[in-house]
Amino acid sequence: MFNHIVCRYNEIATKSGNRAMFERRLIDNMRAACSDLDTKLRFNRIRGRIVIYRDENNEFTQEEKIAITQRLERCFGLDSFSFCLEGERSMEAVEEMIRKTVPAMFAPFLEKNGVVHFRTRARRADKRFPGTSKDIEIAAATIVENIMGEGKVKVNLDHPDVSIGIEIRENNSILYYDSIPAPGGLPVGSNAPMLALLSGGIDSPVACQMAMKRGCHVDFLTFHSYPYTPRGTVEKVQRLADIINLYQTPRGILYACNISEIQKLIRDNCDPRYRTVLYRRIMMRLASKLCTDKKRYAIVTGESIGQVASQTVENMSVIEKASDYLIVRPLCGFDKNETIRRAEAMGTFETSIEPMPDSCTVFAPDSPVLRAKLHTVEYEESKIPDLENAIQQAYDTMEIY
Amino acid sequence: MFNHIVCRYNEIATKSGNRAMFERRLIDNMRAACSDLDTKLRFNRIRGRIVIYRDENNEFTQEEKIAITQRLERCFGLDSFSFCLEGERSMEAVEEMIRKTVPAMFAPFLEKNGVVHFRTRARRADKRFPGTSKDIEIAAATIVENIMGEGKVKVNLDHPDVSIGIEIRENNSILYYDSIPAPGGLPVGSNAPMLALLSGGIDSPVACQMAMKRGCHVDFLTFHSYPYTPRGTVEKVQRLADIINLYQTPRGILYACNISEIQKLIRDNCDPRYRTVLYRRIMMRLASKLCTDKKRYAIVTGESIGQVASQTVENMSVIEKASDYLIVRPLCGFDKNETIRRAEAMGTFETSIEPMPDSCTVFAPDSPVLRAKLHTVEYEESKIPDLENAIQQAYDTMEIY
Repeated sequence: MFNHIVCRYNEIATKSGNRAMFERRLIDNMRAACSDLDTKLRFNRIRGRIVIYRDENNEFTQEEKIAITQRLERCFGLDSFSFCLEGERSMEAVEEMIRKTVPAMFAPFLEKNGVVHFRTRARRADKRFPGTSKDIEIAAATIVENIMGEGKVKVNLDHPDVSIGIEIRENNSILYYDSIPAPGGLPVGSNAPMLALLSGGIDSPVACQMAMKRGCHVDFLTFHSYPYTPRGTVEKVQRLADIINLYQTPRGILYACNISEIQKLIRDNCDPRYRTVLYRRIMMRLASKLCTDKKRYAIVTGESIGQVASQTVENMSVIEKASDYLIVRPLCGFDKNETIRRAEAMGTFETSIEPMPDSCTVFAPDSPVLRAKLHTVEYEESKIPDLENAIQQAYDTMEIY
Repeated sequence: MFNHIVCRYNEIATKSGNRAMFERRLIDNMRAACSDLDTKLRFNRIRGRIVIYRDENNEFTQEEKIAITQRLERCFGLDSFSFCLEGERSMEAVEEMIRKTVPAMFAPFLEKNGVVHFRTRARRADKRFPGTSKDIEIAAATIVENIMGEGKVKVNLDHPDVSIGIEIRENNSILYYDSIPAPGGLPVGSNAPMLALLSGGIDSPVACQMAMKRGCHVDFLTFHSYPYTPRGTVEKVQRLADIINLYQTPRGILYACNISEIQKLIRDNCDPRYRTVLYRRIMMRLASKLCTDKKRYAIVTGESIGQVASQTVENMSVIEKASDYLIVRPLCGFDKNETIRRAEAMGTFETSIEPMPDSCTVFAPDSPVLRAKLHTVEYEESKIPDLENAIQQAYDTMEIY
């Protein structure tokens, strides 16, 4: 019964100078997200909204509705969307659309509860249309009561089972039921691209998602220590990257870098308490090299202040000094449970909690330093023979997935 | 009727090596938060919880309960707390405590709805106590039904009006009703202290709160451009700092720095499109000086990627280069509405939205640069005569509140 989709956005609407760029980017992303579908779609910008039509204005099938919903739900920049019917600009047309759809939309609730709580919401985009929005809402509610029988339905403004939206426009009227929430934020690609340090843990996938939500396309760099970590370490990260990539087009590239040789050098030459900080600095240097080569503008990490020993303020400061790039830490002010809630919503949590060794824990010390000083760390690094060469070797043998 | 408070924490419990430090810090903060009360309180660490007793084990008055609740609700590190009764280690004592409290606790719901939905939750910390936790819960529920009359109460495990908690311990039993939520995180002072750039806007107070929640004490630095901004600019920030300071002891100091002379130099010498980026770099330099003088380890800002022109990835990178300190941006991955929700919960939103000019908008350009390059910005800075001297003058005339 529904033949088009109205898509709403919020933050983009506040952009003055370059709003059109954001809108075009959002449409491009929505089109790319739906490009694997057989259904041909047309995207139009109409007065602060994006409207999607099916080719030849046919109705969407139930399968198409589900498939399109899945894709639009992951488009950053979009706040909500609704599958709509379209009719002439008259209350008769509105009544016709209600008659056509109400029985099917109300049936599941009627079956379950014996009564359906509903509300009507009207908006007159064309203010010349007679009556107030309130008048239209009451008229529409009366139509619903007449169709369903008065005992079977009940107006409920606060917690309705079904909400009916009506818009009267200059040339037509539209009717819709659900307003499906989308993730908000800015469209991926509207800000500069970044490189994320992705591990198999809970945190870094959430950090990637938050960077993407602020408009940044994300590629991924993961570290492993084969043969000290198993093959499964990278495979797990690959599966996480696959989930994260559902939220951006084109897919981000996953780079995997083996740092075991450098870790052996650190183990053999440096104070064991500094190992974790030294590892993290090596990771930052490798990430910076990749940023320079691939023109990425910042490094995203899943760090949260005080969560583990390497994330004290002092250690984060010393680790940051190993890179000239902006380090973006979307989780820096989060508790673990805030991060977990977002990982669950995004769909990465179940994969992240699978047990798997990671490169940070290889030769990990019993009591790591909590407040490293830059000069001490630089002294520890100076004890490693030919570190630059080892870093370049690790970089040159990096694999791409 | 309640004579002690059981306080629960979560993230601290995951700390292995230095858990005792975190616990002591949390107790110190709770004690400091309650130090303005007339009531004398004793704080004890007992098996993974903190228990607060009133002097001489008297009962808390209703006024004391409200005042203490207000203060504990703002203690980072604490997850929840309950006002409790204490009795002997027997079901008879539990029954006695239920008889003593149930009528008063159930009365408001009975009056409103005619029936009270309740549940009982039991925990046997002392496993030698006869019966299972389930047995104790059923016995307690039966006691409640006997007291209130069977038609007036109804067990409801999922959405109870009243939840009764019972704990059987080695030497006593305790009973409590509400578990009052506290903010979680880590106790302020358990991580390194920071300096926050505080403006009159919505964002920076939320950034402060998130840094404090990760254990960092925060001092504040604000900028004004008197006489181009009114006196009210700093007064508004003072009121925001007062609210933020409710969440930490000792209070953070507010430093106010007049940058109008520097802004005039920038206006008169540099490309107007670069003004905002140049202002932000000056602010970072002044903040770095203050960090060095006052031994603060990082700079907190309310920046969010892509929110305004000065917060593109490229501009943030160039601004960051003006400081050697770690820049902490807890909101970098947030949408405005996520920040607003937190500002409302914290109590700063209403103050932040009061209209008031701020120093960032003084001489602000019509079309600011969106993708500044470091060498161009450094060239613009080089055109300012005697910039170092102007910065030092602004720093030397900084005021303390």
